[in-house]
Amino acid sequence: MRIIRVRYRERSFYAVIESPETVRCLNREENLPDEIPLAEVELLPLVRPSKVVCVGLNYHAHADELGMAAPDEPVLFLKPPSAVIGPGDPIVLPAASARVDHEAELALVMGRAARRVSEDDALGSVFGYTCANDVTARDLQQKDGQWVRAKGFDSFCPVGPWIETHVGDVNALGVRALVNGTLRQNGSTADMIFPPARLVSFISSVMTLLPGDVILTGTPAGIGPMSEGDEVSIEIDQVGFLLNPVTGEGPADPGAVQ
Amino acid sequence: MRIIRVRYRERSFYAVIESPETVRCLNREENLPDEIPLAEVELLPLVRPSKVVCVGLNYHAHADELGMAAPDEPVLFLKPPSAVIGPGDPIVLPAASARVDHEAELALVMGRAARRVSEDDALGSVFGYTCANDVTARDLQQKDGQWVRAKGFDSFCPVGPWIETHVGDVNALGVRALVNGTLRQNGSTADMIFPPARLVSFISSVMTLLPGDVILTGTPAGIGPMSEGDEVSIEIDQVGFLLNPVTGEGPADPGAVQ
Repeated sequence: MRIIRVRYRERSFYAVIESPETVRCLNREENLPDEIPLAEVELLPLVRPSKVVCVGLNYHAHADELGMAAPDEPVLFLKPPSAVIGPGDPIVLPAASARVDHEAELALVMGRAARRVSEDDALGSVFGYTCANDVTARDLQQKDGQWVRAKGFDSFCPVGPWIETHVGDVNALGVRALVNGTLRQNGSTADMIFPPARLVSFISSVMTLLPGDVILTGTPAGIGPMSEGDEVSIEIDQVGFLLNPVTGEGPADPGAVQ
Repeated sequence: MRIIRVRYRERSFYAVIESPETVRCLNREENLPDEIPLAEVELLPLVRPSKVVCVGLNYHAHADELGMAAPDEPVLFLKPPSAVIGPGDPIVLPAASARVDHEAELALVMGRAARRVSEDDALGSVFGYTCANDVTARDLQQKDGQWVRAKGFDSFCPVGPWIETHVGDVNALGVRALVNGTLRQNGSTADMIFPPARLVSFISSVMTLLPGDVILTGTPAGIGPMSEGDEVSIEIDQVGFLLNPVTGEGPADPGAVQ
């Protein structure tokens, strides 16, 4: 089942994709037609998470390309929810960075609260799977030591396009990034150092995961820069693909308060 | 004006402290008496932030005690909202750490959305000030490199007890930590490397700050460990004091889902 969040006739709601051309609103109280043309809805960011928990260095080949040893426990960091954007929304390159990279990642969307869950029970608290781009200002990551600024700019967490509730073996999914149609990253979740069940169990030993929270599971080898005007897509087997254009930051408006 | 969030007669609401003994509900629709005895309300965590943005190494004397140079830009990290607790709530020492430290900090609570605000306009988007304890598992901080796990356990972000909307000079406030009544940290915001207005402006150049978001402004010298059974208080001039007991973690319940 593929779940999306959409805007249609000035209303925002979750919907299920029922055919290649139609979606159905999941909230019957909205009194919408059973078949809404997919072409008429605007895709919204899938989730409004209370937190986005990310894992660094979780693929053997990526650790190798950075010349780093595989960690003995997952390395956690957070992206702010303000960084989340949806399919088609622009990734905005900040003026503060000279190099902003794509990082293709399988994302888990939590369906139930989880605190200190076992590895065996972990995937039972996951609602489904989607694609994410862990956009990273590589120069600021190296300068700061802490990764929050480098990975926390507005628009640096594209997620979507839908939540796929059923995949076959989550531990054997191809994960790819393409820039303007050229393959840049091509890995498999089989290469993960800590598989999804272990990540959920580990993170829940630290912090209570809540419904809608998102876990980014790390990126395979092949990270690289994006430029203004690029189109970047993240593809994951059995899940789908997420496409975002890349734009530059406008001039600062010092007094701007949104 | 001092604002608190309370539970009273099974309702939760914001209230203003009007006298040493009474509070008034800020939502008239609740139809509560004008004078509610302070002794009869339960204090709740002040805020449910979309993010808690923290600043590392922001006091000259603390950078000195760690033997580190003052950074040329603020070093940002995030605590998950799931870590936030209120006054009186226990700080729970996780079994995974052998040393958990207190860090007394002035916290800013945002009142308005802010994106790329100038330093001059920055404090205009702040609703008020409160006390926070940036609880840190020192051993895990050193092991992980990234600070999110070490600072992100449930209960590791005590905030409160109230939001003080007016302080005199925010750049000259005493900031103290006491463990069982013994003074352990005793600094002043005058010693900050980046003052609050600069922090808000800098953070808003990266990410959109939203109402209710919390900024922890860094800790002065004198950090140190806490033990089970301790009572830790954070005191800030003109703002107030925040008291939390320290307890140990219970045995893991592998199947527990909250």
